[in-house]
Amino acid sequence: MFHFGVDYYPEHWPEERWATDAQLMQAAGVNTVRLAEFAWSFLEPEAGDFDFDWLDRAIEILHAHGIQVILGTPTASAPPWVMAMFPDSYKVNENGQRRTYGNRCEFCPTHAGYRERGRLVTRAMAEHYADNPAVIGWQIDNELNGRCYCPNCRAAFQNWLRERYGTLETLNAAWGTIFWSHVYTEWSQIPVPVETGGVPNPGLDLDFRRFMSDTFVHFQQEQVDILRQVCPMQFITHNFMGFNFDQIDYFKLAQPLDVVTWDNYPRTGWRLEKEVNHAYVALGHDTMRGLKRQPFWLMEEQSGSGGWQTVGINPRPGEMRLWTYQAIAHGADAMIYFRWRTARYGTEQYWHGVLYHHGQPGRRYDELKAIGGELQRAGEKILGAENRNPVAMILSYDTRWAFQGQQNHVDFHYPALFTSYYKALHNRNIGVDIVPSDADLSRYRLVIAPALYILPQETADNLRPFVQNGGMLITTARSAV
Amino acid sequence: MFHFGVDYYPEHWPEERWATDAQLMQAAGVNTVRLAEFAWSFLEPEAGDFDFDWLDRAIEILHAHGIQVILGTPTASAPPWVMAMFPDSYKVNENGQRRTYGNRCEFCPTHAGYRERGRLVTRAMAEHYADNPAVIGWQIDNELNGRCYCPNCRAAFQNWLRERYGTLETLNAAWGTIFWSHVYTEWSQIPVPVETGGVPNPGLDLDFRRFMSDTFVHFQQEQVDILRQVCPMQFITHNFMGFNFDQIDYFKLAQPLDVVTWDNYPRTGWRLEKEVNHAYVALGHDTMRGLKRQPFWLMEEQSGSGGWQTVGINPRPGEMRLWTYQAIAHGADAMIYFRWRTARYGTEQYWHGVLYHHGQPGRRYDELKAIGGELQRAGEKILGAENRNPVAMILSYDTRWAFQGQQNHVDFHYPALFTSYYKALHNRNIGVDIVPSDADLSRYRLVIAPALYILPQETADNLRPFVQNGGMLITTARSAV
Amino acid sequence: MFHFGVDYYPEHWPEERWATDAQLMQAAGVNTVRLAEFAWSFLEPEAGDFDFDWLDRAIEILHAHGIQVILGTPTASAPPWVMAMFPDSYKVNENGQRRTYGNRCEFCPTHAGYRERGRLVTRAMAEHYADNPAVIGWQIDNELNGRCYCPNCRAAFQNWLRERYGTLETLNAAWGTIFWSHVYTEWSQIPVPVETGGVPNPGLDLDFRRFMSDTFVHFQQEQVDILRQVCPMQFITHNFMGFNFDQIDYFKLAQPLDVVTWDNYPRTGWRLEKEVNHAYVALGHDTMRGLKRQPFWLMEEQSGSGGWQTVGINPRPGEMRLWTYQAIAHGADAMIYFRWRTARYGTEQYWHGVLYHHGQPGRRYDELKAIGGELQRAGEKILGAENRNPVAMILSYDTRWAFQGQQNHVDFHYPALFTSYYKALHNRNIGVDIVPSDADLSRYRLVIAPALYILPQETADNLRPFVQNGGMLITTARSAV
Repeated sequence: MFHFGVDYYPEHWPEERWATDAQLMQAAGVNTVRLAEFAWSFLEPEAGDFDFDWLDRAIEILHAHGIQVILGTPTASAPPWVMAMFPDSYKVNENGQRRTYGNRCEFCPTHAGYRERGRLVTRAMAEHYADNPAVIGWQIDNELNGRCYCPNCRAAFQNWLRERYGTLETLNAAWGTIFWSHVYTEWSQIPVPVETGGVPNPGLDLDFRRFMSDTFVHFQQEQVDILRQVCPMQFITHNFMGFNFDQIDYFKLAQPLDVVTWDNYPRTGWRLEKEVNHAYVALGHDTMRGLKRQPFWLMEEQSGSGGWQTVGINPRPGEMRLWTYQAIAHGADAMIYFRWRTARYGTEQYWHGVLYHHGQPGRRYDELKAIGGELQRAGEKILGAENRNPVAMILSYDTRWAFQGQQNHVDFHYPALFTSYYKALHNRNIGVDIVPSDADLSRYRLVIAPALYILPQETADNLRPFVQNGGMLITTARSAV
Repeated sequence: MFHFGVDYYPEHWPEERWATDAQLMQAAGVNTVRLAEFAWSFLEPEAGDFDFDWLDRAIEILHAHGIQVILGTPTASAPPWVMAMFPDSYKVNENGQRRTYGNRCEFCPTHAGYRERGRLVTRAMAEHYADNPAVIGWQIDNELNGRCYCPNCRAAFQNWLRERYGTLETLNAAWGTIFWSHVYTEWSQIPVPVETGGVPNPGLDLDFRRFMSDTFVHFQQEQVDILRQVCPMQFITHNFMGFNFDQIDYFKLAQPLDVVTWDNYPRTGWRLEKEVNHAYVALGHDTMRGLKRQPFWLMEEQSGSGGWQTVGINPRPGEMRLWTYQAIAHGADAMIYFRWRTARYGTEQYWHGVLYHHGQPGRRYDELKAIGGELQRAGEKILGAENRNPVAMILSYDTRWAFQGQQNHVDFHYPALFTSYYKALHNRNIGVDIVPSDADLSRYRLVIAPALYILPQETADNLRPFVQNGGMLITTARSAV
Repeated sequence: MFHFGVDYYPEHWPEERWATDAQLMQAAGVNTVRLAEFAWSFLEPEAGDFDFDWLDRAIEILHAHGIQVILGTPTASAPPWVMAMFPDSYKVNENGQRRTYGNRCEFCPTHAGYRERGRLVTRAMAEHYADNPAVIGWQIDNELNGRCYCPNCRAAFQNWLRERYGTLETLNAAWGTIFWSHVYTEWSQIPVPVETGGVPNPGLDLDFRRFMSDTFVHFQQEQVDILRQVCPMQFITHNFMGFNFDQIDYFKLAQPLDVVTWDNYPRTGWRLEKEVNHAYVALGHDTMRGLKRQPFWLMEEQSGSGGWQTVGINPRPGEMRLWTYQAIAHGADAMIYFRWRTARYGTEQYWHGVLYHHGQPGRRYDELKAIGGELQRAGEKILGAENRNPVAMILSYDTRWAFQGQQNHVDFHYPALFTSYYKALHNRNIGVDIVPSDADLSRYRLVIAPALYILPQETADNLRPFVQNGGMLITTARSAV
């Protein structure tokens, strides 16, 4: 089945409305919705006091209309009571300030108490829905991101380093700490690269970025472990954020998941750009397909103007359809649109959905319905299609992070260099796979590895036979520095 | 009597000079001065140790030269000993940092200790000057402004919300806290919208702005109550800051006062603009007249270049006279110029007055004297003149604050929209009243209500009969959102 | 002997390499190197556990190749164990944040513990090397700079004020604290001008800048005293930072030293300027010569592209030689180039030296060698040459600091005004001495004193006879304000 649907928040609306919503969805061809990834307040109003009744009823109504459900674990935004329980569970920003309540993703990813609350709510949901026939899969958290510089993360970083280097002698040698007399004689002396520390040692800086990425991979793994154990029949995913997001090694984050899904907003429009950058959207799709080298899903596809404090640009007539087929052409096996209906409150009260605030079907609903009809006819043929491309581009998060610490040249940006190569191929209709540096390259005629700043021996060992066997390798200045 | 005068700081100069100052003032037609609004250090050098002798002597000299006195309560700038008494009485900025000593207006407006010291010095002054025949009125504090995000203000905000909403259920529903699981289960969980909290819930953000405005209105009321009780024969005012200042609901702040006065600096000139924006100055006057829909005073009218770290532009020859008659044409019943003589020290050592640092009469003194002569002849006829205008513009602080939280569009600014309508009328010599949304509109032919973003039922009920009776109402996009 | 050499970090390289380095240096004409100014971690790996063996061996190898040594005291960058010993020895920035570990110069200059550790390591080095025939002199710390706003510095500032003013009455009168009621009644009330205090009283602001300058002068003096006592036969210097650095009164800092040395980077190139500003470099030299009105040394002369996070511009062929003779023409008696070989790690891993990372002689080594040969032949004749110039420019740090606090005009910059006068003379090949306001002016035909904002009586008394005796004095607006 080609999954086609919307992100839906029944908890934002009176229960009387739910049946109407389900009917409208069904009429548009919707067969899948994502639910509950921000509903922790309703799922667990107070510590340990779980309430799944409302969600059961919502799922039942949807199921009765032929709609399957993906459930989000709600750890991306904690209720006030969770954060009040652990005042030191707020992230500390790079500028040294501890975050406070009021938005989302405020939590420190190494905080034991927060993680335990996250495991508890995940397990409770998992146990409740493991056998629900409508529930087909899980999304863990939501758009994992951020870096934390709190004392807890500093201690965790020191432990991570101890595992990586074994001894301080090895670490001091690797980082060259004799420069400026930074030789560490106790693990506890090692700082995190906050702004108050000034421009840091580049080795320390790169390792901290690796550590934080690993921390989020580990945070996700805790929930993966619970879900694998409790709900073995349901798939597990996380909604990624395309090419541009660079704080987590997406190859590692994708590894334990069944499928990669992502959130695509071609017209977020904060700066009200007139034109959509189609090559850039395509690069997002290809990156997502490359994470597991298999088809991916759209978990949030734009269906209205974005908006927090300002309102973005409404997708032009036909753009939802355009974006849908672009995604499919690049390997998408499912299309879930964000969001069903525009909320009337909250920070995202101007983030528009398929329906306006008023809830009546309009132009964007009609477009959804048209697409839904087409995909009902064509969907099965699309599933599992393989993209066979002659070109691979090597994406290295290590390199990306090293350049974040040391830009090398004021006009140099690794993502921009990467994108410029990609765009040249895209504009000539040459298909590209985005692959990690240890990928099997034998199937490609051309491999492009822009500025492989961090080039470990294993990568060199992977590139050498490719070239020896006649492959063409393009790389650039600032490689293997 | 048309009050004509200057803001005077005898405490900045040797006592031997005072008589010379008074003679020069009298010769220029000065009949009123404002004194003491920043003299707390001299009025109460140590806690409870009041010293009014110097001020008595200054007032006596002025009175002997036919000059009446308005006294400022000195709470806008506290001596070091006050702040040292209450280390937690410093404001906390939006970025979470607590202010420290060194400028003015550093105090948290909800701090019980600071407020008590303010009441004590106010009462001591009031009791001392209640029967002084030279003292005709009081200015409370000085240009009230600021927002504080300290723990004390957070608790006060929570109490303010409890009064407004009664129950957390009502508050959660009004703010839509189910979005991102912000459902509050204890009043103490509710945060203040500091930067570390990220983009806040728009309901919370708007309510915090309302709360802070109410807090300053309440702060002023404490002093009003003392003065009403102790000095029933003297009037009470506060010096407002025109149209541009937007942190306090000026309609509410004006309500308990006898008269609105304001501080007008057409050529503050921080950016050294070549041209004075006359329409903008006029909007300031009309806004001030609208606060109580009655004539207002100028408490500080520019008489020299402004200057903190940089020096602004000197009023061009004739501009003081031009600005004076502009103010009178818009409803001013008194003109007090800031300041008599340029100080030789302090943060404002380059904020020039009628006299230069050297104290000799010069060009600006001659201009003051010429205006003084004209107003001595014409003054009585001006007093109480009523501005009858065919157009009203509705100014809504609620709307202004909501747009501060959510700008809606990157190029949209409510004050700029408001000003553009005003300017079009001003440039066609069409008189405008600036009124609150509950004003009596029956006398107007045209009412302009730009972008009434927050449009409560009562406002709609006020607008409907106006239109039904043939009035013309102009409003714009983003109304009643 | 004309000292010609490089800044060398043997501790960055395997000991096996040292002899090769020394041979290459000797072949290039190097007769002097600076060592150890950032080697605290190696000199004192743990508190009190000194290790000079490695440095002895390095010096021995150099000495065997005819190379003399200047030793740097290593207090500019402390090992982690020092800072861990004194968590409150980190500087507090102007924004109120305490610095953390990770770069250099993090220490608070008034911290008793840090200063003691600095004295201890200085004394240990001094005692060990007092009689070493290879060691000819000492550089104290490295590029002293920074301002600290910590509680400790606040207390020290209060004591400094007490010494300067004697009584609070005098201080209150001098600062005009009656403005805004800032009258201090306890020394402990006096704040430091952090950002959270808002725009400060200009008297307080200027005195804080004076205090911080004096603090660094005093910090240096502690080490001068030790070295004078222990190593009476070796000279003492500090490496200054030319005209642009403005936090310390360089006339005062130079006073106790034997010779002024400085660090000259014409092509630091952070902004990748195409052209070198030769007049600006010349102004640096003339300022350095003016500090003691005697020849100066180059302690760090650029010999490669600079680079922290980005890489600057490589000196063009011939530029090293050009800069060398420019320095000599302006009075340099020694040329030490930074640095011998580019480090392979640390924050400055892209700050290039004479040798590239790989350590093989290349173009810049050849240039060094060519210059070395020329100076071996000509050096003795250059030494002690006196620059006789017809023009003096008066540089006043007091004025500079006062303008930092009060810019006066948005387009006014004292250093830019100063430079524009200097550049006009430079471009006409008219030699200029940069002198303090109390310098003997009798030898000059023209004295230029741009914007002498702070003009004490003694300065006026120095200028008057110069003019009375027929000298021409040029000054500008904003003098003697």
